[in-house]
Amino acid sequence: MNESQTTLAVICKALSESIAAGAFSAEGRLPSERALSEQFSTTRITLREALGHLEAQGLIYREVRRGWFVSPPRIVYNPLQRSHFHAMAKDQGRSAETQVIDARHCVASDTVCQKLLLPSGSDVICIRRLRYIDKRPVLYVEHYLNPLYFSGILDADLTSSLTDLYASRYDIHYGRVRFDMVPTLLTREASQALKVASGSPALFITRTNRDQNDRVIDCDLEYWRYDALHIDVEVN
Amino acid sequence: MNESQTTLAVICKALSESIAAGAFSAEGRLPSERALSEQFSTTRITLREALGHLEAQGLIYREVRRGWFVSPPRIVYNPLQRSHFHAMAKDQGRSAETQVIDARHCVASDTVCQKLLLPSGSDVICIRRLRYIDKRPVLYVEHYLNPLYFSGILDADLTSSLTDLYASRYDIHYGRVRFDMVPTLLTREASQALKVASGSPALFITRTNRDQNDRVIDCDLEYWRYDALHIDVEVN
Repeated sequence: MNESQTTLAVICKALSESIAAGAFSAEGRLPSERALSEQFSTTRITLREALGHLEAQGLIYREVRRGWFVSPPRIVYNPLQRSHFHAMAKDQGRSAETQVIDARHCVASDTVCQKLLLPSGSDVICIRRLRYIDKRPVLYVEHYLNPLYFSGILDADLTSSLTDLYASRYDIHYGRVRFDMVPTLLTREASQALKVASGSPALFITRTNRDQNDRVIDCDLEYWRYDALHIDVEVN
Repeated sequence: MNESQTTLAVICKALSESIAAGAFSAEGRLPSERALSEQFSTTRITLREALGHLEAQGLIYREVRRGWFVSPPRIVYNPLQRSHFHAMAKDQGRSAETQVIDARHCVASDTVCQKLLLPSGSDVICIRRLRYIDKRPVLYVEHYLNPLYFSGILDADLTSSLTDLYASRYDIHYGRVRFDMVPTLLTREASQALKVASGSPALFITRTNRDQNDRVIDCDLEYWRYDALHIDVEVN
């Protein structure tokens, strides 16, 4: 390694350790770039490269005009474990909230019709929600429901778990689930909802859900902030 | 929708359909932005927004100073199916190649030592490889092997499957595997190898592999181009 790479490695290591040790304020804001450059006796360029490395690892993130912040721990998402969003957060000692953006009948796109095994141009129920972990919006999700199975659901409280609502009101329980996960860039709708720049990286997860009778009941298009989760799968 | 959103939707739909129909040249290069603006009688701004949408979906990608290209189909990666890179590509009608960047003994990072259940500062074998699908570099991978099990492996041909080499030379076969998948941004090393801009989005997959006797034998740190794969998991 040459000298500048050594400096870079030293800064990355020192900052990673400070983050791990909880050295920054409760809000998790880092000192200014100027203060950090002085602290490490380095140039802004080298400092920014170090910050970029930590950002790439998801350890810190930048907010427009506010500076750098320590990323909260990622949520562990295990597709082999059946768990809904609120339960998953709670099991990991985190707080979860759900906000309904809108909910209505609409004509589904061809992609959604294919997932739901419906003819092209079918009417479906679309519920758009924004989900928070510890007050930070991390997941923008569009749920598409086959309306045949969920009559009157638009009158229900849609801020809590759909899993629970399906069970209590319709006696419908999840059976087989298919996950399709694609690293992607955020669409305009998703980035606006998540309050990050359009084109930011994201993980796009499509879940297609069947019920206890193996009928396809709904599909979810989930856009996750790239630094908000990791997928953990163990295979025997 | 307002008028500009309608135009945008029309352009996205028309271009998606042309791509699906294979309308572009074998190399997959799109016409210039100027030609496309004229074709759709729209402004550069709207056209670029449409191209950005298609890029976000992974349908097209941009090469520095060369323009826009149609993305090859994503490779399907199913962590529940045991298949090595070359076999996976072949099963999907694609060609695969592997290039060894370097291979040597080194002192492992703390993260790698933890994965391999070795004491901090242990010596390991590190093999860095670049993997191609249909001539495009899509995966930069660092393999870390516990040297206890793989004596003399650095003398072998490392351009083919390690899975096969483990079996034929060491009678070691994969057992349990743990996958940890994290959307991330590319590090400098990975982006240089993959010939994309540093900080480009990527999927970072850590595989920790055990053998038939449940010993941790190696771990792979895989950096995938974000538009090169999708993960497909079906859960009963």
